[in-house]
Amino acid sequence: MRMYDIIKKKRDGGELSTAEIDFFVQGVTDGSIPDYQISALCMAIYFRGMSVRETCDLTFAVRDSGEKVNFSAVNGIRVDKHSTGGVGDKTSLVVAPVVASYGIKVAKMSGRGLGHTGGTVDKLEAIEGMRTTLSDEEFIDQVNRIGLAIVGQSRQFAPADKKLYALRDVTATVDSMPLIAASIMGKKLAADDDCIVLDVKTGSGSFMKTVEDSKKLAKLMVDIGKNAGKKMVALITNMDRPLGYAIGNSLEVIEAVETLRGHGPEDFTEVCMTLAGYMLSLAGMGTPEEAERLARRAIQDGSALKKFAEVVAAQGGNPALIENTDLFKKAAHAHAVLSPAEGYIRAVNTEAYGLASLALGAGRNTAEDAIDYSAGIILKKKTGDFVKKGEEIAVLYSDRAETFSSAEETLLAATEIGARPEAEPLVYAIVE
Amino acid sequence: MRMYDIIKKKRDGGELSTAEIDFFVQGVTDGSIPDYQISALCMAIYFRGMSVRETCDLTFAVRDSGEKVNFSAVNGIRVDKHSTGGVGDKTSLVVAPVVASYGIKVAKMSGRGLGHTGGTVDKLEAIEGMRTTLSDEEFIDQVNRIGLAIVGQSRQFAPADKKLYALRDVTATVDSMPLIAASIMGKKLAADDDCIVLDVKTGSGSFMKTVEDSKKLAKLMVDIGKNAGKKMVALITNMDRPLGYAIGNSLEVIEAVETLRGHGPEDFTEVCMTLAGYMLSLAGMGTPEEAERLARRAIQDGSALKKFAEVVAAQGGNPALIENTDLFKKAAHAHAVLSPAEGYIRAVNTEAYGLASLALGAGRNTAEDAIDYSAGIILKKKTGDFVKKGEEIAVLYSDRAETFSSAEETLLAATEIGARPEAEPLVYAIVE
Repeated sequence: MRMYDIIKKKRDGGELSTAEIDFFVQGVTDGSIPDYQISALCMAIYFRGMSVRETCDLTFAVRDSGEKVNFSAVNGIRVDKHSTGGVGDKTSLVVAPVVASYGIKVAKMSGRGLGHTGGTVDKLEAIEGMRTTLSDEEFIDQVNRIGLAIVGQSRQFAPADKKLYALRDVTATVDSMPLIAASIMGKKLAADDDCIVLDVKTGSGSFMKTVEDSKKLAKLMVDIGKNAGKKMVALITNMDRPLGYAIGNSLEVIEAVETLRGHGPEDFTEVCMTLAGYMLSLAGMGTPEEAERLARRAIQDGSALKKFAEVVAAQGGNPALIENTDLFKKAAHAHAVLSPAEGYIRAVNTEAYGLASLALGAGRNTAEDAIDYSAGIILKKKTGDFVKKGEEIAVLYSDRAETFSSAEETLLAATEIGARPEAEPLVYAIVE
Repeated sequence: MRMYDIIKKKRDGGELSTAEIDFFVQGVTDGSIPDYQISALCMAIYFRGMSVRETCDLTFAVRDSGEKVNFSAVNGIRVDKHSTGGVGDKTSLVVAPVVASYGIKVAKMSGRGLGHTGGTVDKLEAIEGMRTTLSDEEFIDQVNRIGLAIVGQSRQFAPADKKLYALRDVTATVDSMPLIAASIMGKKLAADDDCIVLDVKTGSGSFMKTVEDSKKLAKLMVDIGKNAGKKMVALITNMDRPLGYAIGNSLEVIEAVETLRGHGPEDFTEVCMTLAGYMLSLAGMGTPEEAERLARRAIQDGSALKKFAEVVAAQGGNPALIENTDLFKKAAHAHAVLSPAEGYIRAVNTEAYGLASLALGAGRNTAEDAIDYSAGIILKKKTGDFVKKGEEIAVLYSDRAETFSSAEETLLAATEIGARPEAEPLVYAIVE
């Protein structure tokens, strides 16, 4: 088998065989296929697409390209949620303890933030003392003992995806539906959960800018998961505005804890309860409606908050911070962003909000950058809110006051003030 | 300027600016753009194409990517012919002396053979003692003195093309009309002749398999040349059969000398006279018809043969070989290929004939291979000829008798015997 022939076949619109796709991913993983052939194939796939069968094969080959955790020692059904990435998206911190409070196992391997999107592992590390690297034994033991553990992906997890993504990122071949689906699902399936709820973000803060494209991507990923024998559902959720009011690591942890206490922002709470409902439902806890009622009860009776505190304690985090979030270290400086006009917040560019937070020090430009955990943004007004001229739109937080002017500029340029906008749904569709 | 943005622009169907194309070719030449980005752009160009303006810019950037010979010291008009490559194509050995015999300057820089096609420099080196590497001074002096010199491209000639072609060759991006045109014309224009006649081969032995595609490519190259201020014409010639009867280096030199003596094969003589006519005409020697009569006269009166002998002597070749071609070293072994059936030669796969000759030792699989100058094929029957069962179709020559069986197999598989075929023209079209 020759890589040249595989490129030519796809270039000419052919369907690659399972053996050809395996050969390709194997060669990506072991380095035997040169980068220039990989990028040429990615560009041919960009133009020619892939069938569902090809996309499944690519996903499974990516899944099988690296090491895996052996979960056979975990008792019970394992469920996970995966978000395609957004701004202010701290849902994992809420839904995982809600689900785990019903005895469902959540063995969560999360990522770090890059660019305008945050990462669950970074948020957890804003909690003093929190360990996000556990041995396989510790990880599985904690999942068995308290039902939930959240760690970073430290091992050689789906290395083919890492290599492929790095190349796609510099050759303008990221925006290909089958390549996106295989990348997300290849990593997700490597964790081998029994049930997966996908949270496909749509709008200005996400990969997919239209609901139509989001539905297509969601359907493709659901089909791939089902082909791998998983229980699957995908929610198409709104990322045309940040979720909740907090953007930035410790600010988001505080908002998540408030939500677990039952005092979270309405939009964020709503999305969390819907997601947790589907997770519980897939795991056998009734219809999505019944399961969502269970999710709300876990907030009301405090069991979800208790579960989160248990996880923090188990992973070495300071439990006092969860009991009293005022104890989180504050940023050295704060700066209020005032509205330049009167009117309704008509629309915001969510990605730009994420970039403003990044500029304040809350994120990373490259994988090696350090994070300022207390940096970020607290929104005072969101899309649909009325604002007077000179009223606070947001407050910026950073240890470096010199970052405020550029972050403020970015944020204001990304905020449209004018006539009252039409209301948009939080959840656009359920894809099964 | 970022290569990523250039790839994305072309991927999305945009037209690259002159500055963007210059940036790309500069980066290819100095190695600052990684191979994976080059191949991604080539694949995007494969799918999206290029405008004539973009193709011209690419060609000129390739032309300017390396060293050039300074031809200002050459007296008189310089004309050249360029073939897109064929099998048994020894036309340069005939047309160059014909044209030079009228005082037109031909400063020819030729290539070597690779794969199924031969190269003029290899053919010349079949003449004992012939030097194909001259200093710039020697080269220009010989052109001024006797009107013709033929050398190999020893210098760093259009290095961007060398790099680009090597990558395209392994990433299935060779078959792109703008990339082919820019590659051929970039190298050709670097020689900076005043007039160029292109011989665009069409059919089974060439790049372009259809007359339609050949015309498109020819028109594109003619337009590029005119944009560079050159007098241009292209002939679309038949490569659905080898040209003449000889394939292989010394065998082709012998056939060329026979043609210069006026005893060449009809098809080969015809193509040579048409090409030489257009070369003389572009150089100002009358209409193509008038100039073709001049070309025939140079054969009849022996002046073209005399010019060729002068060139051989000037470059150190043994003139006795030209006087008496029986003195060429013969291959150690000969093997007759007999017809398996009675009928007309309906069609042949010219590329396969070239590969059979390669297998006998007449060509190179890689640029480092050595050549057996006496190896090759003398055809006894060509397309349209009637053949009896057991009659000779061809005679194979090689120093290694063990190569005969595979070459014979290749040749027979590439020869279709059956009903009388329709006659095909030698020259399909003139593109101006």
